[in-house]
Amino acid sequence: MTSPATTPPPPYYAVIFTSRRNEQPGDGYAEEIDRMYALVHQQPGFLGFDTARSDGVGITVSYWDSEEHIAAWKAKAEHLAAQREGRARWYDAYELRVARVDRAYGFERTEV
Amino acid sequence: MTSPATTPPPPYYAVIFTSRRNEQPGDGYAEEIDRMYALVHQQPGFLGFDTARSDGVGITVSYWDSEEHIAAWKAKAEHLAAQREGRARWYDAYELRVARVDRAYGFERTEV
Repeated sequence: MTSPATTPPPPYYAVIFTSRRNEQPGDGYAEEIDRMYALVHQQPGFLGFDTARSDGVGITVSYWDSEEHIAAWKAKAEHLAAQREGRARWYDAYELRVARVDRAYGFERTEV
Repeated sequence: MTSPATTPPPPYYAVIFTSRRNEQPGDGYAEEIDRMYALVHQQPGFLGFDTARSDGVGITVSYWDSEEHIAAWKAKAEHLAAQREGRARWYDAYELRVARVDRAYGFERTEV
């Protein structure tokens, strides 16, 4: 996957997930995240995502074609289990924001 | 600053800035970012931000009370100069998305 994610012209939707976690090696977090990344790519309406983590702060922004497809992903069984584990073990705090992207513009370097 | 950023109840606005850059030590990037972070806190309508960077990918999400205040920050002279430097030197690619946050919910661990 290459960041920034490639997305269609607006409008579309963004789920902004910011988290702070207690980094415990071997707590299964990395494996579960890999599982969720593989799974989300199969979800209807999924457009792509960007993710970064530093100093214990993680930001993952996923892009979607509709709020209905966001709701379907939120309610998916494997994802619900991961959400429970997140609250039980991995995260000290998180905030999830659902937003409608109205405008977007980008830049890409072209060497000459 | 503590992440996740504390924000008022929706609706409010998010500017999602994702970037890929060629990490060149001593290119003045870190100093300029510190200057911009200090400056943005003085902008009318600024609510907070979250930022993370890993594997050359940066995500900064800033939160605002209105699109007018986002436009004012975009047009601010010192910020315009930083944007020019970003395109000339620091970034290989970026995408900037302006979104309206309609729903938000969070979690914070409370030890018992």
